[in-house]
Amino acid sequence: MQNIHKPTLIVDTNVCKQNIDNMLNKAKSSKINLRPHFKTHQNAIIGNLFKNAGVQCITVSSIDMALEFAAQGWHDITIAFPANILQIDEIDHLAKNISLTLVVENHEAIEFLNQHLHNKVFVQLKIDVGYNRTGIYYQQTQLINDLLNAINSSMHLEFSGFLSHFGNTYNAKTTAEIEEIYKTSMKRLLSLQMKYPNAKISIGDTPSCSIINDFSGANEIRPGNFVYYDAFQMNLGVCSIEQIAVQMACPIVAIHKERNEVVIHGGAVHFSKDNMAIKSVGQVFGLVAKTKNSKLKLTEGAYLKKISQEHGIVSGSKEWIDERKVGELLYIIPIHSCLTANLMKENTVFI
Amino acid sequence: MQNIHKPTLIVDTNVCKQNIDNMLNKAKSSKINLRPHFKTHQNAIIGNLFKNAGVQCITVSSIDMALEFAAQGWHDITIAFPANILQIDEIDHLAKNISLTLVVENHEAIEFLNQHLHNKVFVQLKIDVGYNRTGIYYQQTQLINDLLNAINSSMHLEFSGFLSHFGNTYNAKTTAEIEEIYKTSMKRLLSLQMKYPNAKISIGDTPSCSIINDFSGANEIRPGNFVYYDAFQMNLGVCSIEQIAVQMACPIVAIHKERNEVVIHGGAVHFSKDNMAIKSVGQVFGLVAKTKNSKLKLTEGAYLKKISQEHGIVSGSKEWIDERKVGELLYIIPIHSCLTANLMKENTVFI
Repeated sequence: MQNIHKPTLIVDTNVCKQNIDNMLNKAKSSKINLRPHFKTHQNAIIGNLFKNAGVQCITVSSIDMALEFAAQGWHDITIAFPANILQIDEIDHLAKNISLTLVVENHEAIEFLNQHLHNKVFVQLKIDVGYNRTGIYYQQTQLINDLLNAINSSMHLEFSGFLSHFGNTYNAKTTAEIEEIYKTSMKRLLSLQMKYPNAKISIGDTPSCSIINDFSGANEIRPGNFVYYDAFQMNLGVCSIEQIAVQMACPIVAIHKERNEVVIHGGAVHFSKDNMAIKSVGQVFGLVAKTKNSKLKLTEGAYLKKISQEHGIVSGSKEWIDERKVGELLYIIPIHSCLTANLMKENTVFI
Repeated sequence: MQNIHKPTLIVDTNVCKQNIDNMLNKAKSSKINLRPHFKTHQNAIIGNLFKNAGVQCITVSSIDMALEFAAQGWHDITIAFPANILQIDEIDHLAKNISLTLVVENHEAIEFLNQHLHNKVFVQLKIDVGYNRTGIYYQQTQLINDLLNAINSSMHLEFSGFLSHFGNTYNAKTTAEIEEIYKTSMKRLLSLQMKYPNAKISIGDTPSCSIINDFSGANEIRPGNFVYYDAFQMNLGVCSIEQIAVQMACPIVAIHKERNEVVIHGGAVHFSKDNMAIKSVGQVFGLVAKTKNSKLKLTEGAYLKKISQEHGIVSGSKEWIDERKVGELLYIIPIHSCLTANLMKENTVFI
């Protein structure tokens, strides 16, 4: 890490490998498929770690990301986002070259795809079991039935099951609550599946995939964040600090002892503005790591407290601030690794 | 705009030109220099609009951004961020080729620069007059004096004045408050200047530069956001909707009439997560534009209310939602154009 001179994301690939192995083993022991979400890293090197571990099918969140990974040799891709029919040409191009699964939830998309595609795509119905972001509510059986009929009578679409995202696990306060959300959500999906016994079930947010061991009823899981994890997931209780694979190295550019703060080059264009609340501290934009022995440890009482476009303000104890030096690198654990990795695409080192 | 198929930033260059002319005229009538901050757009096309309007010196917020604009032919650049001494090689390279101004606020940086530079740089002392993000508090006259002595006795550093950023104007509730902050801040800077009559004064945040007309006492202003403006600045009262040069075009991918929401492809990786509070609505991540007659107008009661990595949830009236169609483009005014433009670098169209 001696050659880092500016804000840089450091990815520990050994930790990534361990995280991948853990999740793969979980999937194997439940006899289901792991289709990791690549939106977290969007990176060929991490993609290869998955490939080397035996992963063959992946999830992405946009058509552009599907094009990127198809070009890197991935042949089985699910775009886990309601199909954007404006990109029909790119969809058709992908469908010609790879096994492509789209997610649909309305007649407009199904009809448009069927009319304009020349190549076969698999489609999954997006089902909402309580997160309420998007998808068809699982009890809207009439609509689900109508959409399935439309898919089944189409030329180029082949139904391949129900896809759901239990994103409300991110709002849980305890791991018991995550488990409860998982169980309720799966129960709802399985009640829907009773009516369509051949429909496969695809689920998988990082919080529940990290703490649930028995995925009975599901056919595949699609977690993404788990390959890096982050401060948010640790705070949620679904990973330990040793499982966090990413940290940001940020140069200290100023020290303000009078208010126990240091200024780092590291702001919203590096971290994003995602934050989380820490008891008796308030909102924080990052935790501060010690880098001793290359094992991630926290510096107690030090937090990335404020960020603007390029500036980050780190608060810490008087003793800790006294030891800081202008020109030193600080190592910060990001709150949301997906958004940080997206911003740092061109300034990432893999160790 | 017929060829937009995915989240795209649309920049109206006529509005930009008008914003540039307005700010240039203000600077001219106060007989001061406009050194626009290029962190907002980070773009060669907008850079050329400034060049064509007669601007010759610019501000950036990182050494990498200075390298980028130096390569585009800009010869007078201020890096308005405490000097990151770890990038000494890049600093020295810039100093060899252009007129480079760095900002310093501590002995460590001054000594390091003096020891390692081979080429001359101008330095400005960063002065804090109340924002409390970084800089030397204006009353720390002993430290200021010591730093000035260190600069004056150095080989490669030439003192070129005091630089300050009145960033607390962003927290103002009224334009009267912005004016008050401006006056207090300038008074403090001028009281410091009394002791160093030859020191020039560089200031300039977009809120105060937009409403103040008489910049007496300052030698240059460095606003950046004003070239695009955004929903935040409009809400602050410092620009009209006609002055906003940017909007995001986002495809509608799903409609949920039961809760008066549409889902767009447009999330945190497009907008950033900056948000602002609207009375009786709460936090919003964007306003919804009408595009009739290509003049920006607001759709009343419609807001980008939630965003995750790629999803955006727009709430609106029942009537408005009823008219929406899957596959239609929605036009959203971003809250913070600088962060949005940074994320959309590769997906921007200029009209």
